[in-house]
Amino acid sequence: MKNKSSSSNLLVVGSVAFDSIETPFGKVNKALGGSASYFSLAASFFARPSLVGAVGNDLTDKYRTPLQKHNIDLSGMEQVDGKTFAWGGKYSFDLNNRTTLFTKLGVFKQFKPKLSQAHKSSDYVFLGNIHPALQLEVLAQINKPKLVGLDTMNLWIETAPKLLAEVLKKIDIFIINDSEAREFSGEHNLIKAAKKIMRMMEAISPRPSPHKGREKTLIIKRGEYGLLMFQQSSKKIAASPAKALAPRNDTNGLSIFHLPGYPLEDVIDPTGAGDSFAGGFMGYLCREGSRPFPTFKHLKRACVYGSVMASFCCEQMGTERLQSLLQADIKARYGKFKKMTEFELD
Amino acid sequence: MKNKSSSSNLLVVGSVAFDSIETPFGKVNKALGGSASYFSLAASFFARPSLVGAVGNDLTDKYRTPLQKHNIDLSGMEQVDGKTFAWGGKYSFDLNNRTTLFTKLGVFKQFKPKLSQAHKSSDYVFLGNIHPALQLEVLAQINKPKLVGLDTMNLWIETAPKLLAEVLKKIDIFIINDSEAREFSGEHNLIKAAKKIMRMMEAISPRPSPHKGREKTLIIKRGEYGLLMFQQSSKKIAASPAKALAPRNDTNGLSIFHLPGYPLEDVIDPTGAGDSFAGGFMGYLCREGSRPFPTFKHLKRACVYGSVMASFCCEQMGTERLQSLLQADIKARYGKFKKMTEFELD
Repeated sequence: MKNKSSSSNLLVVGSVAFDSIETPFGKVNKALGGSASYFSLAASFFARPSLVGAVGNDLTDKYRTPLQKHNIDLSGMEQVDGKTFAWGGKYSFDLNNRTTLFTKLGVFKQFKPKLSQAHKSSDYVFLGNIHPALQLEVLAQINKPKLVGLDTMNLWIETAPKLLAEVLKKIDIFIINDSEAREFSGEHNLIKAAKKIMRMMEAISPRPSPHKGREKTLIIKRGEYGLLMFQQSSKKIAASPAKALAPRNDTNGLSIFHLPGYPLEDVIDPTGAGDSFAGGFMGYLCREGSRPFPTFKHLKRACVYGSVMASFCCEQMGTERLQSLLQADIKARYGKFKKMTEFELD
Repeated sequence: MKNKSSSSNLLVVGSVAFDSIETPFGKVNKALGGSASYFSLAASFFARPSLVGAVGNDLTDKYRTPLQKHNIDLSGMEQVDGKTFAWGGKYSFDLNNRTTLFTKLGVFKQFKPKLSQAHKSSDYVFLGNIHPALQLEVLAQINKPKLVGLDTMNLWIETAPKLLAEVLKKIDIFIINDSEAREFSGEHNLIKAAKKIMRMMEAISPRPSPHKGREKTLIIKRGEYGLLMFQQSSKKIAASPAKALAPRNDTNGLSIFHLPGYPLEDVIDPTGAGDSFAGGFMGYLCREGSRPFPTFKHLKRACVYGSVMASFCCEQMGTERLQSLLQADIKARYGKFKKMTEFELD
């Protein structure tokens, strides 16, 4: 069971879709899209992802080819009678707002994921942005995951908060947008929001961490402004007179990583950036999976790789840039990102 | 002339004001404010600033005391007949918007800065946010500054763009908000905006830099999201096949530093944060002034100190937190900031 030979061990459940996108800089019609497509393409540069989702019989080979070229395991991509999920959206001139023109769930409406034996023994699992009830169903089928990541959206926060709260207790890493974090927690300030959400995840406890080396992690994405990552710190904070003097902003007890966004001169299409982030993030952790559980240092690097993949995603329409990307591009941008953000102690 | 013995060598010209501020978390009436007050208090932790500005005869000792306690040279703070500049503002619930309730220029209306002999030989000069014509007048009086920093605002971008363009060519470091940078350049994307503004500063040239070790620097502040710093890179970029493949986002030729904001759990009052940034930034450069001109590494550290001072500024109403701050607080936050943002190469 520990050595699954050829079976891939990064599983993602999410959507494969026809995306029709219009931005001030380009337009595509019925292009390959969906959260699981972006995730898998980004993750494929680090590990071999298995994609679990449903597509209709209108999904021609043309859409499969780029996924296959990236060695993505499509055995869990169920083809059923009906139409593939389709989404249309249009962005404002500064790309900060988008209007959904249409959402046709198609075969995704009746989607009930059933995992194969190989997929049930996945080590790394990413529950893409689907109904929390489905996320729970998938999770129940995995034998003994090493690490489970989770995405969600405002729709589930508003319509299924109790189920979402249930999922949250069972996962390791929760990735959420800043606006979602604010809505979910009812707190405008992101550190206050983070603390509330971490309590829901049972990631913060008044006693020493109950997770024994398996600390739960919250990542709040801020779009072009980067991200904040939070974990309960395992270190005990020594009481000091200096601490008593600090009246506020006592983030002692929290490990925080604050990464700005990679600055791009030409953003063409931000669709899929969040899924590409998750793909790079989880892909890296899977590749480095020899350790029992990632350390905060590892999670930081995973965030940087995720951000790098998200930045590439925005450079062309849809999945185009992810399709043409080379390992050397990723490596170069990681190095540039480090150079751009590092500074020395005085 | 090189060794000015006891005279301080960091000069700031700007306003000293009565501030009346209301935020969701507090309220002050006729408190010490103004760009030069915030700048000087923040800078005083690094160097001895000389404040140049005008105040009315209604400025009682109560307002001078905190400045004097921080060893700020007030010999250039001219007291004239009339009323001290007064400003009133109110912040929205999330502190992201503020409404100016009143602006009474008072003695600042007729302010014509006349520098003393000692101030004319200042090495480090910060031209606070006043009319570009006044900024030019001050600059003309300085004998041979080592480094000149500049602030401005939308009002001057709109009403005096030509004079502002003239100042820009004569200074070393331009500090501007993201919204101002967008308005000034007519570009929404900040890298595009930066390139345009750098051309106006003559900071970018098609030939090797004409500044011979005195590179011009642009800093775009993004409020709670931190900042971007730009300089023309002195290094020649080797042509490589990898470069030819990269279709966009070619920031080669630019040195970029991207610092996120220091995350605060309790922001009480953001008034003066920008001036505190500039004070910490210029104060640090002045303290480290033994070198002929700061390197990019030095400028990075100056940005971090500036951001640290800005973050403290927001923790209490008006200048309160800057008044109670200790060197140890600054040092501790700098270290925490580094820990929070650093990551390793893979």
